[in-house]
Amino acid sequence: MAQRIHDLVTPALLVDAARLQRNLDEMARALPRDRLRPHVKAHKCTALAKRQAATGHRAFTCATIREMEGMAVAGLGDDLLLANEVLDCSRLAALRDRARVTVAVDSEETVEVASRDGMGEVLIDVNVGLPRCGCQPDQAGRLADLARSRGLEVRGVMGYEGHVVGLPDRGTREFMTEESMKLLLRAHADVGGPLISAGGTGTFDINTWATEIQAGSYALMDTAYGELDLPFRQAVFVLAAVIHASPTHAVANAGLKAFGMDHGNPSMEDGHQVFIVSDEHVTFLPSEPVRVGDLVRFVPAHIDPTVAYHERMHVVEGDEILETWPVDLRGW
Amino acid sequence: MAQRIHDLVTPALLVDAARLQRNLDEMARALPRDRLRPHVKAHKCTALAKRQAATGHRAFTCATIREMEGMAVAGLGDDLLLANEVLDCSRLAALRDRARVTVAVDSEETVEVASRDGMGEVLIDVNVGLPRCGCQPDQAGRLADLARSRGLEVRGVMGYEGHVVGLPDRGTREFMTEESMKLLLRAHADVGGPLISAGGTGTFDINTWATEIQAGSYALMDTAYGELDLPFRQAVFVLAAVIHASPTHAVANAGLKAFGMDHGNPSMEDGHQVFIVSDEHVTFLPSEPVRVGDLVRFVPAHIDPTVAYHERMHVVEGDEILETWPVDLRGW
Repeated sequence: MAQRIHDLVTPALLVDAARLQRNLDEMARALPRDRLRPHVKAHKCTALAKRQAATGHRAFTCATIREMEGMAVAGLGDDLLLANEVLDCSRLAALRDRARVTVAVDSEETVEVASRDGMGEVLIDVNVGLPRCGCQPDQAGRLADLARSRGLEVRGVMGYEGHVVGLPDRGTREFMTEESMKLLLRAHADVGGPLISAGGTGTFDINTWATEIQAGSYALMDTAYGELDLPFRQAVFVLAAVIHASPTHAVANAGLKAFGMDHGNPSMEDGHQVFIVSDEHVTFLPSEPVRVGDLVRFVPAHIDPTVAYHERMHVVEGDEILETWPVDLRGW
Repeated sequence: MAQRIHDLVTPALLVDAARLQRNLDEMARALPRDRLRPHVKAHKCTALAKRQAATGHRAFTCATIREMEGMAVAGLGDDLLLANEVLDCSRLAALRDRARVTVAVDSEETVEVASRDGMGEVLIDVNVGLPRCGCQPDQAGRLADLARSRGLEVRGVMGYEGHVVGLPDRGTREFMTEESMKLLLRAHADVGGPLISAGGTGTFDINTWATEIQAGSYALMDTAYGELDLPFRQAVFVLAAVIHASPTHAVANAGLKAFGMDHGNPSMEDGHQVFIVSDEHVTFLPSEPVRVGDLVRFVPAHIDPTVAYHERMHVVEGDEILETWPVDLRGW
């Protein structure tokens, strides 16, 4: 096992231990205990989730059945929400002896699946403006009635303002979050139940209508969220080695299979400029001369699909590796 | 084990068995035996590589040490080229009892690493216009001399015209390939050795200067290469299920963690239009009404980083699953 980053096989995912802890502590101060239901899709790592639990956040949000299974197996099953629609709940039902499992439903079909497969608890997923899943707000009460008629416990509503969380202007985020949450509260009035689950890292301190916030990116951050006025700092980097240096450019050994690219190219530290990203390489324009063998660090543009490429993350303090955590919630 | 695609956990990577075989056969006709050194980075799958070997292509190109290791373990080590620079060859040297291992070098540093770590054979990697790795053509002879002085066998040169392979106009590809290969031949004149290794799927029948072509994408294809006038057909798809259907849009359960996104959004079959790709969802505009539970198929925009997200690929004939292959060369 590598003890220093210079011994790592590159590319490698590094987590700055102090920055991660500050991000977790900052969030625990702002949204203590059940005010936050951290979303594990951003980091897909039960070891990191245990750190979140240690700061008081013991209920979690998941995006996939695999994430739910992994969290339950890791002993983090106090209160797991699958904030997504699924067409087969049998693997979720199998977790019920070791986890509290709640699944989102947004249609008659998904209610019937939850009932058929032996689920106990559901949330009614409401479309609050993001063109994705969620029923129309005026249909939520009807779905809740259907769910209850099938013997399901309805814990409340969820509605993700995903079209708002990344908007750079805070005032716009505030206005649009309120508009979205009006829709969710209207649905909740028809549905009932203790939970109003919504929000993300970009609205964690704006969305005061939800009873719980589903933020995930705050723990590790990325360049997209880094452009907002948030109190969380970049805590994850992709470490790579310079394998080629010429007078015009240099090449590091991290590429398209190490970075989620939907938000564009990663950035580099030390003023280096990313030029071209190919499968296993980044060609960059160095701010000052680099040599073959030098280590460089990249900041991912989008954390979720970046982490999903990596088998493990190394928790570091400077150049020292404190721990290595498997990214154990990947896949489906 | 699922026997039909309707039983699969989605998203899932599907390979059309007949189309894959046609692509492999077409390439074997065009570039028989050692005229092709298939690049495994596009599929990262030793089971697929065995199919390539069965059509007569038994020498392979790799991009990572992990790929080299996996190919050697799978018994596909007749002649493995790591067409990339590395700073530590110890894992490669450990393969030498079961594989013929050649590594690219493009600098004094990488020559010294190969020598230090007990490598036997190298290729001199030459920059032929792509701003990435490779020495300048007029430095190749000097590097070859250095390598030989260190006891390394120099098998020849490689030079990837990666800036050419994706250009839509065939005439432009022809002209620019010739320009690139003039540089490579000039280097080869100084280096010697039997191998002139170059090319990709987009220049497989244009690059007649190289002794062997390193194409990889031809086996599975993607929408980017699909726009060129190539004889290979799309053979890989991402299967997803419709989990939400509303009057305005529908949602399938495949997202940013199932698609390499650097070439843009995936496409859909049946005339559906991709609208938004998020972490675990594609919102799409259906060409005709779809229902919750329907299966839909996506065509990846870029094959290499798409496959790297998946644990396995399912080889299908229509809806029937013939085989399931692990994507066993992922990671580093």
